[in-house]
Amino acid sequence: MEAKVKTLDVKAGKPVAIINDRDAAEHSIFLGDRICLKYGETEGMAIVDTSRGVPRGNIYLFKETKEEINVEEGEVVEVESSIKPDSIDYIKKKVEGEELAEEETRAIVEDAVDFKLTDSELMAYTVGIEMSDFSMEEAKHLTKAMVNTGEKIDVEEALDKHCIGGVPGNRTTPIIVSIIAAAGYKIPKTSSRAITSPAGTADTMEVITDVKHSLEEIESIVDEVNGCLCWGGALNLAPADDEFIRVRDSLNLDPLEQLLSSVLAKKKAVGANTVLIDIPMGDGTKVEGQEEASKLSRNFKELGSELGMNVMTLVSDGSSPIGKGIGPALEARDFLEVLKSGGKEGPEDLRNKSVKMADLLLDEVGSKENAEEILESGRAYDKFKEILDKQGGGIKEPENVELAENRHTVKAEKRGRVKGINNEPVNKIAKAAGCSKEKRSGLYLHKKEGDPVEEGDDLITVYSESPKRLEKAVELAEERKVYSFKSLLSE
Amino acid sequence: MEAKVKTLDVKAGKPVAIINDRDAAEHSIFLGDRICLKYGETEGMAIVDTSRGVPRGNIYLFKETKEEINVEEGEVVEVESSIKPDSIDYIKKKVEGEELAEEETRAIVEDAVDFKLTDSELMAYTVGIEMSDFSMEEAKHLTKAMVNTGEKIDVEEALDKHCIGGVPGNRTTPIIVSIIAAAGYKIPKTSSRAITSPAGTADTMEVITDVKHSLEEIESIVDEVNGCLCWGGALNLAPADDEFIRVRDSLNLDPLEQLLSSVLAKKKAVGANTVLIDIPMGDGTKVEGQEEASKLSRNFKELGSELGMNVMTLVSDGSSPIGKGIGPALEARDFLEVLKSGGKEGPEDLRNKSVKMADLLLDEVGSKENAEEILESGRAYDKFKEILDKQGGGIKEPENVELAENRHTVKAEKRGRVKGINNEPVNKIAKAAGCSKEKRSGLYLHKKEGDPVEEGDDLITVYSESPKRLEKAVELAEERKVYSFKSLLSE
Repeated sequence: MEAKVKTLDVKAGKPVAIINDRDAAEHSIFLGDRICLKYGETEGMAIVDTSRGVPRGNIYLFKETKEEINVEEGEVVEVESSIKPDSIDYIKKKVEGEELAEEETRAIVEDAVDFKLTDSELMAYTVGIEMSDFSMEEAKHLTKAMVNTGEKIDVEEALDKHCIGGVPGNRTTPIIVSIIAAAGYKIPKTSSRAITSPAGTADTMEVITDVKHSLEEIESIVDEVNGCLCWGGALNLAPADDEFIRVRDSLNLDPLEQLLSSVLAKKKAVGANTVLIDIPMGDGTKVEGQEEASKLSRNFKELGSELGMNVMTLVSDGSSPIGKGIGPALEARDFLEVLKSGGKEGPEDLRNKSVKMADLLLDEVGSKENAEEILESGRAYDKFKEILDKQGGGIKEPENVELAENRHTVKAEKRGRVKGINNEPVNKIAKAAGCSKEKRSGLYLHKKEGDPVEEGDDLITVYSESPKRLEKAVELAEERKVYSFKSLLSE
Repeated sequence: MEAKVKTLDVKAGKPVAIINDRDAAEHSIFLGDRICLKYGETEGMAIVDTSRGVPRGNIYLFKETKEEINVEEGEVVEVESSIKPDSIDYIKKKVEGEELAEEETRAIVEDAVDFKLTDSELMAYTVGIEMSDFSMEEAKHLTKAMVNTGEKIDVEEALDKHCIGGVPGNRTTPIIVSIIAAAGYKIPKTSSRAITSPAGTADTMEVITDVKHSLEEIESIVDEVNGCLCWGGALNLAPADDEFIRVRDSLNLDPLEQLLSSVLAKKKAVGANTVLIDIPMGDGTKVEGQEEASKLSRNFKELGSELGMNVMTLVSDGSSPIGKGIGPALEARDFLEVLKSGGKEGPEDLRNKSVKMADLLLDEVGSKENAEEILESGRAYDKFKEILDKQGGGIKEPENVELAENRHTVKAEKRGRVKGINNEPVNKIAKAAGCSKEKRSGLYLHKKEGDPVEEGDDLITVYSESPKRLEKAVELAEERKVYSFKSLLSE
């Protein structure tokens, strides 16, 4: 068909053209079809969006496509259906429950990165994986394809760790990275920001230093001081994974099948060949039972081995928060206290878990060093300061980490002993307070499991940038679902 | 977050806003999120598209949203995440393999019609239906919700027919409608255009008359002459179905589970309570075996009964084309010949199948009339002309239907007898010639099953508007996969 061009003076990020929905139907052009646009001697590809808002006979072009075919507003282009990529047939095959061959999975991933697939098609693939038996063989192909379609960090024999998430406060990474790097091993750690949790490691590190560095900068930092603590989001590591995550987040889908590929692709891309995966288990985490945890653990190791990586797992207690602060700034205070004091101050559970994980990694690579000694000797803290300096300097003292000014402390109504702390209300309160968007907001848990509590003791202090949000968060905190107590009398 | 407005001077057909992908990630706003835009005293809802092409801190608004919140280019709006509709949770539930309750399915359908769901979310629902056990109960809820969210045609006790498709040339509808209307029954027939086939009934009828009429016009035509032959595409009958079809067409998905709801929703919306479903069975059709055909037939009847409709089915021979012409104009010639001659001329199989189907409908409603008599007496042809006049007049003589000027006839290489005609190459040739877009293009099958063939006899004449397309279509026709022959000697 021929269509009159209306140019939209913006970039869509993808080559998108919008045509009238009835024009589309009459010319057998469907949403997501790839079309070829011809104007004089030039031609270009675009993905079709159909809309009843576009007048018939018109085509709306975003800047990328307008420039590619060098056309001006009001001129007429020839629109032809172009052949759909084969990857669409493979997605359909997946939706029909079949297992895909390596080249079929690769085609899907390559086309995802090249923007040849629409969000709907990526969603169909994701749901197809979720609803079918996704084999280890397919997971391997998916992971390899995701790694090979992105950038890589050129560090050899690197170590890495990853937590599959779900536990508030669990900010072990800066401590582990400092210990491992101090022991002389390379750990080019890239972390994500929070998506649905109150804080990610990148959010927390950003409170105290600059986390945005290029691949070349990361390589040079790791070369000089063995480790880094950077944001991985803009590095184009396994970018197909980002596309899949972007699409499935809209449904809050988080299929464990895709988790394997997603995690190991990012690790593979940073050159890690010894990886420790923390699998928190417990109510409100991603893995609620032992059976599921064991299966995931086996799958991680199996996929790792298929990819030539040595993957270890730690099924940890995820039933309650780790550390006392929840929210980027409050978590930064926690780990800075542990590092600075050599483990003598700061939350004990955070210290112990970090040491345990660092030891698992050190043992695995045959180090004769002991994580506890590295932490206690102050070498871990010295290493952390070196990393900080390379990343552009920043806050080194826990007490210098600023917290939001609107604060309120919820106090105990009667005496007792803390039996448990529930993740879900903790997450809710932190988010209501403004996390992870507001880095200085969050909450502080004054009491931890086993602590005795007297009537009137501080239980939770909530911090927020906004009095209104503080009020809402405190309301949630006062519902008293965070702590469960046992009577002191019954002991 | 606050964002600077850039206005796009076009309508998107949906309230869409585009923001930078990293801004989105940092503010926990995801693709497809519904956001609330505040500008002074006004506010409005939009669905988020994320793009790396939008500069950080900017928001691109399409015309609908710009006008709703009354904002100008360069001004700053406050962007807040608004609560996701509950229907997203129900889609997720479907993807997790669960059965949905009536109100859950209804919420999905209502939000689909109100554009509160993104294409990806609609795709996830479709794939969820395809990959799970979709119960009859759920199909009923889906159908009812689709009918209730659209327009309806106010005709009581109407009859209707539908073919699930897959057989080239199968243009029984104009003949059946003429017979039923002549017998005194109401048949407000709305048809679709071709999507993947060489011609739909609406395409064929459009060759000879105007098929675009409003609901009110259709009601008045049916009131006066009992029947009509119109295009249903723009009538907003069960519009949610159109949304689902639009999304799933991009993957060429056609789940039989959704077919049931899709077909019966359109029938229910035109007030039909006696419906005949033609289920062609055979290689290359949607239903390849008896078991599948029987199951589909049972399901159609069961769903019909749940909806208070009397649904009959006819499992017909779909192994080869019906009629001799393929393509809108050529099919129009075929059915006009049958109608005008009272069944004495034109393709016999087309005549016989139409009469059989009309009889099934007439018997079901207790008519004492006989379809063959109505056709032979010329009453069907007279009724057809009445309908034509009401729809705006048009071509009445088969020989006045124009065909494309570029033609080529493929001839027989040796004598024999036609054993079979294959649907797939017939469809391919017709589409290569320009169908359904070019209404005068297509092909004519000179011989049908059982016909004797002498060396040099005409087999296939191909018609096309373009010499280039003709050449390509003739090439396909000369591959000789259309006909299979048996030797005359073996008889």
